[in-house]
Amino acid sequence: MTATLHSISGDATAAPSMDALVALVAGDLRHVNQVILDRMQSEIPLIPELAGHLIAGGGKRMRPMLTLACAQLLEYGGARHHKLAACVEFIHTATLLHDDVVDGSGLRRGRRTANIIWGNAASVLVGDFLFSRSFELMVEDGSLKVLRILSNASAVIAEGEVNQLTAQRQVGLGEERYLAIISAKTAALFAAACRIAAVVAERDDGVELALDAYGRNLGIAFQLVDDALDYASDAETMGKGVGDDFREGKMTLPVILAYARGTDEDRKFWKDAVEGRRVSDEDLAIAIRLVRETGAIDDTIARARHYGQRAIDALGPFTRGTAKSALTEAVEFAISRAY
Amino acid sequence: MTATLHSISGDATAAPSMDALVALVAGDLRHVNQVILDRMQSEIPLIPELAGHLIAGGGKRMRPMLTLACAQLLEYGGARHHKLAACVEFIHTATLLHDDVVDGSGLRRGRRTANIIWGNAASVLVGDFLFSRSFELMVEDGSLKVLRILSNASAVIAEGEVNQLTAQRQVGLGEERYLAIISAKTAALFAAACRIAAVVAERDDGVELALDAYGRNLGIAFQLVDDALDYASDAETMGKGVGDDFREGKMTLPVILAYARGTDEDRKFWKDAVEGRRVSDEDLAIAIRLVRETGAIDDTIARARHYGQRAIDALGPFTRGTAKSALTEAVEFAISRAY
Repeated sequence: MTATLHSISGDATAAPSMDALVALVAGDLRHVNQVILDRMQSEIPLIPELAGHLIAGGGKRMRPMLTLACAQLLEYGGARHHKLAACVEFIHTATLLHDDVVDGSGLRRGRRTANIIWGNAASVLVGDFLFSRSFELMVEDGSLKVLRILSNASAVIAEGEVNQLTAQRQVGLGEERYLAIISAKTAALFAAACRIAAVVAERDDGVELALDAYGRNLGIAFQLVDDALDYASDAETMGKGVGDDFREGKMTLPVILAYARGTDEDRKFWKDAVEGRRVSDEDLAIAIRLVRETGAIDDTIARARHYGQRAIDALGPFTRGTAKSALTEAVEFAISRAY
Repeated sequence: MTATLHSISGDATAAPSMDALVALVAGDLRHVNQVILDRMQSEIPLIPELAGHLIAGGGKRMRPMLTLACAQLLEYGGARHHKLAACVEFIHTATLLHDDVVDGSGLRRGRRTANIIWGNAASVLVGDFLFSRSFELMVEDGSLKVLRILSNASAVIAEGEVNQLTAQRQVGLGEERYLAIISAKTAALFAAACRIAAVVAERDDGVELALDAYGRNLGIAFQLVDDALDYASDAETMGKGVGDDFREGKMTLPVILAYARGTDEDRKFWKDAVEGRRVSDEDLAIAIRLVRETGAIDDTIARARHYGQRAIDALGPFTRGTAKSALTEAVEFAISRAY
């Protein structure tokens, strides 16, 4: 990608990383991991076996880390957020298990997916189990507000996934519909993960909404960059293989922009590709050339930077400190992965 | 089947039916159906389309009717149970959608299943949506006790489904494991559907536990009879086709008993059948003969009658009246379906 990296924070000396966030929440995350391990247990051995494959398997714990970091931002001194961060990770894991079945995926983060190892049936059912277990944990916590936020996020995620499914292989899909899809399927859980920190810290609606906005915009930025990386020239930073979205005919923003800006010949190519008639490695190479030449990748990243900036600005009202810095750098990192 | 029908209530003049229960809750059920229709809506048209296929498609509303009838038994005068009965039906529908994907079913209640019409992906995701929507509805109601009961039931159901999956095609499965499976995958939701009526009526733990026991035992009886009916000589009372369990190699009680009581030759047949090597129509005819000759069907029904009696006895403490009669007759009907 040809765009120059502009650090949003103005510090261009070091590449942004997740290190500050990871260091900030390391102590809390140990508690969360313990809750996750305890609560994915069952008398039915297949459940911890399958769940453990995904939960222990290289996940970045991005969403629970956001809950923990937001709680620190608010100087929350209790322990309720450990259980609730585990809920968020369970919902995310359940979604991944079902996604892999829906997409017919074979690899995630460079490892074989659960549906390939144990079959679709087991992935669907263990996903259901983790989802139910997540609600059990929330009920133990006892906050109806948290339950409302996370049950709503779950319904929105499922709606977003169905929306994405019905949008599959439709080359005419516009940017607005795409944004609606990623806002639902990705950003809703980021928003909820951050927002519940305000609930446990018993802060007012303004704080809740600010953290919701931070998470939501970060989630959109994160997904935009993910979608751009699917057209990167090599499978560098992500475990996910380049070209997965292309081969599945997913209408992501790079394709939407390249199609909108393309020649008649380009559009013919995209239509054939999205409808599944051109999915060879040579076709992928053409697709990568087109998303670059039309500026579709650069502008996908520019859109991501826009949402990233909104995420950072949503943190404006909060006191400076290590938590705010770490949350800010997480946004910069999410965007800089594309370079 | 050769056993004589003994009406548990002692009234042998008329065949038991669901008519009394249906009449009892008819007014309430209209409200529940309205909630169901309202809350399965979404901006994504596929969601109400797919959900409507199953929800409108000949479902008996057994579980929500139980919530409504138990509320009447307790002379509950409010309206909270309408929303909560809809929650129960949503959870049940989500489970059916996922079950059909897991089993690779093509027919349910005599109609094509959603996974056949819209694909597995859509069934998984719309199931997730209904499940999430159910929790949103519970949160609106605002009772943490109800949330605990239904989130726990959901986790138990998913565990039971995984347990059943791992038990598939294992000819040595015993009655205890089978009972654990059906208690989880079927009876847990019957129990929860009844129990939440005690919560909305603000009755004590004893009442909650009595209704839980009624529902749980009814659920077990119901599943036992369902499993016996799969070996009935024709597809009389149920939409479900005879022989489905047989062809899927499901270890249900008729098979467990016929295998345990069979000759060496019988056992060889069952092993081959359960492991998928003998599933022709001729094989099904042999299976039906064996489950009858060994008394496996009669004794599956006898077991069902045992749980049915326990369900009826759990109602002992409650005042006689139309609600109690209807709930009693529902048990008798569940068992008499096999005759």
